Amino acid sequence: MALKVPHRVLVAPSGFKESLDARSVAAAIGAGVRRALPCAAVDLVPVPDGGEGTAEILAEATGGTLVPVTVTGPVGEPVRASWARLGGVTRGTAVVEMASAAGLRLVPTDRRDPGATTTRGVGELVAAALDDGIRRIVIGCGDSGTSDGGAGALRALGARILDADSHELPDGGRHLARAARLDLDDLHPALADTEIVLACNVHNVLCGPTGVARVFGPQKGATPAQVEELSAALERWAKVLERDGRAHGLDVRFGAGTGASGGLGAGLAAGIGARIASRFDVLLDSGLSGIDLDSLIARADLIITAEGSIDVQTPRGKVPAEVARRAQRAGVPVLAIAGSLGEGARDVHDVGIGAIASIIPVPMRLEDAVANGHDLLVDAAARSMRLLMLGSAVASRSKGRAKKRKHRAAA
Amino acid sequence: MALKVPHRVLVAPSGFKESLDARSVAAAIGAGVRRALPCAAVDLVPVPDGGEGTAEILAEATGGTLVPVTVTGPVGEPVRASWARLGGVTRGTAVVEMASAAGLRLVPTDRRDPGATTTRGVGELVAAALDDGIRRIVIGCGDSGTSDGGAGALRALGARILDADSHELPDGGRHLARAARLDLDDLHPALADTEIVLACNVHNVLCGPTGVARVFGPQKGATPAQVEELSAALERWAKVLERDGRAHGLDVRFGAGTGASGGLGAGLAAGIGARIASRFDVLLDSGLSGIDLDSLIARADLIITAEGSIDVQTPRGKVPAEVARRAQRAGVPVLAIAGSLGEGARDVHDVGIGAIASIIPVPMRLEDAVANGHDLLVDAAARSMRLLMLGSAVASRSKGRAKKRKHRAAA
Repeated sequence: MALKVPHRVLVAPSGFKESLDARSVAAAIGAGVRRALPCAAVDLVPVPDGGEGTAEILAEATGGTLVPVTVTGPVGEPVRASWARLGGVTRGTAVVEMASAAGLRLVPTDRRDPGATTTRGVGELVAAALDDGIRRIVIGCGDSGTSDGGAGALRALGARILDADSHELPDGGRHLARAARLDLDDLHPALADTEIVLACNVHNVLCGPTGVARVFGPQKGATPAQVEELSAALERWAKVLERDGRAHGLDVRFGAGTGASGGLGAGLAAGIGARIASRFDVLLDSGLSGIDLDSLIARADLIITAEGSIDVQTPRGKVPAEVARRAQRAGVPVLAIAGSLGEGARDVHDVGIGAIASIIPVPMRLEDAVANGHDLLVDAAARSMRLLMLGSAVASRSKGRAKKRKHRAAA
Repeated sequence: MALKVPHRVLVAPSGFKESLDARSVAAAIGAGVRRALPCAAVDLVPVPDGGEGTAEILAEATGGTLVPVTVTGPVGEPVRASWARLGGVTRGTAVVEMASAAGLRLVPTDRRDPGATTTRGVGELVAAALDDGIRRIVIGCGDSGTSDGGAGALRALGARILDADSHELPDGGRHLARAARLDLDDLHPALADTEIVLACNVHNVLCGPTGVARVFGPQKGATPAQVEELSAALERWAKVLERDGRAHGLDVRFGAGTGASGGLGAGLAAGIGARIASRFDVLLDSGLSGIDLDSLIARADLIITAEGSIDVQTPRGKVPAEVARRAQRAGVPVLAIAGSLGEGARDVHDVGIGAIASIIPVPMRLEDAVANGHDLLVDAAARSMRLLMLGSAVASRSKGRAKKRKHRAAA
């Protein structure tokens, strides 16, 4: 079998939630590719998606550092978080990963109630960066454990959220049902001359049938009744933000990305004038992240992307879909490897992913797959490479035989 | 992506034990191939391995019939079995599948004791074919639930096995510890002018450290103590067979295939002069089975084989290894799909299998994988085809770019 294809492989995966971060996923796939094809040139580019691992990936890619800060966690207890001070061409920019201060992983399973959790720690991280002199901040949204419409973050930055009697509301999205007024008079002074960009999945909106409470509430631990309660509270909050906020013209309820991270998008856009942007446009802009994905794609013969689960959600702006979108533009074939091929996995062929592969070699429990993620991924990548190599061998055989048939027919 | 390779696919799988027979496996893989590649020409050739399904595959392949007979099952209760009356060019030949009369599947889990089970039903099937006028019988070995050294089968054909006091021994391998004499005077008269061929995995031997009791006893339900008891009994039986049997010169203890089906190989070879042959040489001989595997291989661009589990056992004469051996001779690429990729699966690359794929898309229980075998297999075959197609696309891209680089270097 010809063992010479492809020459150059770009490995550009997402992290596998609760198993491997994106850097580990990239390393494992790279190891598998090299096992099958020792001579291949392999570029490893873990792709940040705004969620867990984003700050670390960008700090590393730009030669920056992580600045540790203890902040208020999503259930009110202190957590060790950090913001990234980027280096290189993007010196002067900070990345705040909301998940490091208010991620679902920080909410103990028995306290998962999105009506109660807060993004206060996210605001505290932003304030820490401002106090450090930073005047350009990218906030990565994703993997949140909150649905407070960004109210906690705004408070940490000096906002007051009042009820009809001008009493401040306690933290937690459900109390927004009583929100009457947003007072922004005492906002952190540095915000006035700071550019804040929200790197969001723009598919998420704050309100309505596909609003955050209804789409993400259940996976954050809300009961059906709590989902409806929260949904109504966020409707009320949207009205207050629209009237008292600073983003005139923003459609707080249905604007793109307003639902990012449990409504953090809406809160910070309306409350402090943060700009909502499509996460990959921001995070894969080489001017910001130092990652020039498009150039790496253009010189690859094959791209391998990956995600914990490939399913109906994947085409809705997940990492493999974004990588495939860019690869398709450059005409480079894409393979996606997944910890799990769920319902609708095949639909990803429509967004430019040529083939998909599962890492699961035998019937096994989810816990075992998670615990052995690295080894399973190395093996799966090597197996997939051998399939690709076999395909190349079949193609050249097929072609040779077709020629022979033609020749015989002519003779 | 180029969707035109391969032109002609040969699907030549084994059955998946306890899930799908070889014909169902072939049909599922064929459906998956056509889903990914609607224009491919697909040949479906379920490969008989001597075990379960062999008689049915050969009856179908030759246009023959199955003749139902009620025989003594492995635990002594009657079972509905059948022998195959082959048709076409092999009219006049019968196939007796030992598993249909004495297979492990016929032994209730709570009665799995290879010291007690009997091959009597196998002899009864042979007798039924003889009584029908058949004078050429192929006995397919594999998937047995017995370890009686073929004693039961010999008895059903008229042999008497006596202890030192000239009393007949009861059925069951453990009683062979007391075997003193084999009396063949009253054998079925038709045996004298009948050719009997045992289609065996020739790797299996009767005695010693890799003898049937030790290798297969445990999976047939024997405790360690029972394994040693049975091992000693078969040693004794070997001596009697060697002295009183009809196969002068046969190494009953260590000869190739003597351990087939719990020693049925040794018993019938020594007892009635059956010829031990490598199962695939017999079963894939187009003169017998009507299956001309080598010709089908030669015209294929790709061969897909499959097995329930691909593991350290696979290279030891299992269907995928045999298919790959023949394919390698013809230079045709081989893909193997498995329900489970076990320990040592990668070693199959050494025997000519270019790539392997698992059917398991997500962490799941074995029971669920078995219950959904068909759908999982269709999906896995389609996924694998897309990987092959992607490999072909990568190869042509790689080649194009290499040319360009060369061109640039020359300019």
